[in-house]
Amino acid sequence: MNPAAPTIPDATAKPAHAARSGFPVEKGMLRIGDVPLTRLAQRVGSTPFYAYDRALLSARVAHLRALLPREIELHYSIKANPMPALVQWMAQLVDGFDVASGGELTTALDTPMPARHITFAGPGKSAAELRRAVAAGILVHVESAREADAVAAIGAELDIAPRVSLRLNPAFELKSSGMRMGGGAKPFGVDAESAPALLEALAAKGVQVQGLQIFCGSQSLDGAAIMDAQSRSFELAMTLAREASLDLHCLNIGGAFGIPYFPGDRALDIAPIGEHLRQWLPRLREALPAARVVMELGRYLVGEAGIYVARVVERKVSRGQVFLVVDGGLHHHLAASGNFGQVLRKNYPVTVVPQQPRAGEIEHEVVTVVGPLCTPLDVLAAQMRLPRAEPGDFVVVFQSGAYGLSASPVAFLGHPSPAEVLV
Amino acid sequence: MNPAAPTIPDATAKPAHAARSGFPVEKGMLRIGDVPLTRLAQRVGSTPFYAYDRALLSARVAHLRALLPREIELHYSIKANPMPALVQWMAQLVDGFDVASGGELTTALDTPMPARHITFAGPGKSAAELRRAVAAGILVHVESAREADAVAAIGAELDIAPRVSLRLNPAFELKSSGMRMGGGAKPFGVDAESAPALLEALAAKGVQVQGLQIFCGSQSLDGAAIMDAQSRSFELAMTLAREASLDLHCLNIGGAFGIPYFPGDRALDIAPIGEHLRQWLPRLREALPAARVVMELGRYLVGEAGIYVARVVERKVSRGQVFLVVDGGLHHHLAASGNFGQVLRKNYPVTVVPQQPRAGEIEHEVVTVVGPLCTPLDVLAAQMRLPRAEPGDFVVVFQSGAYGLSASPVAFLGHPSPAEVLV
Repeated sequence: MNPAAPTIPDATAKPAHAARSGFPVEKGMLRIGDVPLTRLAQRVGSTPFYAYDRALLSARVAHLRALLPREIELHYSIKANPMPALVQWMAQLVDGFDVASGGELTTALDTPMPARHITFAGPGKSAAELRRAVAAGILVHVESAREADAVAAIGAELDIAPRVSLRLNPAFELKSSGMRMGGGAKPFGVDAESAPALLEALAAKGVQVQGLQIFCGSQSLDGAAIMDAQSRSFELAMTLAREASLDLHCLNIGGAFGIPYFPGDRALDIAPIGEHLRQWLPRLREALPAARVVMELGRYLVGEAGIYVARVVERKVSRGQVFLVVDGGLHHHLAASGNFGQVLRKNYPVTVVPQQPRAGEIEHEVVTVVGPLCTPLDVLAAQMRLPRAEPGDFVVVFQSGAYGLSASPVAFLGHPSPAEVLV
Repeated sequence: MNPAAPTIPDATAKPAHAARSGFPVEKGMLRIGDVPLTRLAQRVGSTPFYAYDRALLSARVAHLRALLPREIELHYSIKANPMPALVQWMAQLVDGFDVASGGELTTALDTPMPARHITFAGPGKSAAELRRAVAAGILVHVESAREADAVAAIGAELDIAPRVSLRLNPAFELKSSGMRMGGGAKPFGVDAESAPALLEALAAKGVQVQGLQIFCGSQSLDGAAIMDAQSRSFELAMTLAREASLDLHCLNIGGAFGIPYFPGDRALDIAPIGEHLRQWLPRLREALPAARVVMELGRYLVGEAGIYVARVVERKVSRGQVFLVVDGGLHHHLAASGNFGQVLRKNYPVTVVPQQPRAGEIEHEVVTVVGPLCTPLDVLAAQMRLPRAEPGDFVVVFQSGAYGLSASPVAFLGHPSPAEVLV
């Protein structure tokens, strides 16, 4: 935790972006994994680029290990950032991976992570994906009777006992989360109230369901809502296991932990959640003695460990407003442009880093940072107070380690792809 | 214009989607370029895919030629759909191309289109892109003094007289358009009121500006607003040409023509716009005798000629609601999911096409069509009344010829890329 981290004053005065600790500024220069940004840019060879900090990834997992009960297993959801080198690094830090496609399965199996610690969820798994999953010996979170039947048939054909977990759509939801994925009618999983009949039908076909997954939302900064959802998930799992006489080996309660992106967002306090889980464990051990309890986190593990770096091509004044036109934008970082699941566009934390450290007082000004695309959607920061920038200086977007490059329309308007580096 | 085109009744009863004429249904089967969809799917070999209809592209250009004055030159903006085969087809239909990057320049130069009919606009052109543009002999819409200086320097170095047009940010805007790109403070072009001084400075450096581009918005369905913007653009160009003694060879007034996407949208009536332009031509010929008048259209030329086709993986009922889970989604067609510049999600026109034509009355139901991604954002149609679908049937998204695949985060969650075919 470094108190010298840059503060990002916002033109709207308050609310402000949450304080960050990951990327310190020393002698006026931002450092990533102890490398000055200017030097890192030389090493990468071109802008724009994404950079992820290994030490921050490790520190984040250690932070969770320290605050959550030892018995809670941590899985990394590859969808948050599928860069192969980053996934390799995560393999030594976490207890398992979750994949969302055949492509992610390939990435996961290329790491040293044992296949039995890999799980696969997704509402529209193809026959080919299910076949690969059974052959690999990973745990498949089936989300419908069709998927369960398909997995059983593939297992019979390949003479492999498939490892099956049932994804539930609970009747409750994760309140005040960025993404609600449970409660009401949903395409994800099996409605909890339909699960007993499905489990019975599966047992009759010889399919032993060894796990439950209950994933009710993500990107929540509300600890009380998360604890409430966790309690309800445990109750649901215990009830269902008892009623269906399940021998549960794995209880996956999803993720939900969010990170602060926008002015006014405050970092989630993990300690009370750890304490809450600690209080639950004795009951769980008694009701589900064989079950490992798994949390599946993506964004929370990697989101704050990454930055997106673009370079100012032009400083332009139009009718009294200053625009910094940079060489990256929406096509590399859709979420920062406000076009990925956001109703109203808000600014990510952004700063300017001069090519050369500047002496003396640094002038600030209110600017709008735009990309090179011919569309008014291509905005990385609107009306933010930032250090004055000239062509060649860097614009850095923080909180860019998750749902950045892979969630962006890279081919849009035919510009080159950005580099990605792990530092 | 085929009256047998499928109608898309919407669950919200009214407003409805605009009638479509491009993709007729014969004997219960949708046809693309006179090929039944089932046969086209066999030919492509996999779903999902995008299909674009050559005949519809030709018909759209012919429609414009018939209604606009002969003197108006039509350019295709490659950014709307950069599929190389489609751009090759457009090369014989239109009078020029507009490119927005070095990548699009490569695509354009690979067609038979003469370089002198290619233009390049974009607020953050790199030094490398400007060098390529000058070497190619295309017309560069410079958007700042920096770009003008850079082009002049490159011209001197390469001993090539660079072809330069000035992009203006007018003081007016295109009212009620989907994308406003003029009026107020903007990163695009040079503020109109700053243009005289810039033109004088350029003339002093020996740079002859031979064109003006005034692009004030796109995706407008309001003919009166378009005509108003065109009149203002002509007035601005004539005034500036007179005051700066410009010998204008090219006056590019942008595009703006929109297509109907959402319930309640109505197709733009081109005839009055053609008549309006016809009335302007004598004045323009007198004031700017050497100037070709260019309209630069992307979406309007290709948007209605394309469909996106996915296949139903699963028909799922959750708490009384029917979900069709298909093998494509947001990662291939971000705009149809409502995550590309839309504040409120609305449904594109969507239909279901059975694998086999069905006999008798077709049952309809209200469904939500979702993709295979583990995110609640992955919705292709929400609560739409559609023919009942079973796994293996097709879901077709119309109005998908522009800003589809290239504007989508294809790598998101690691699924395969869709095919693209020109039929």
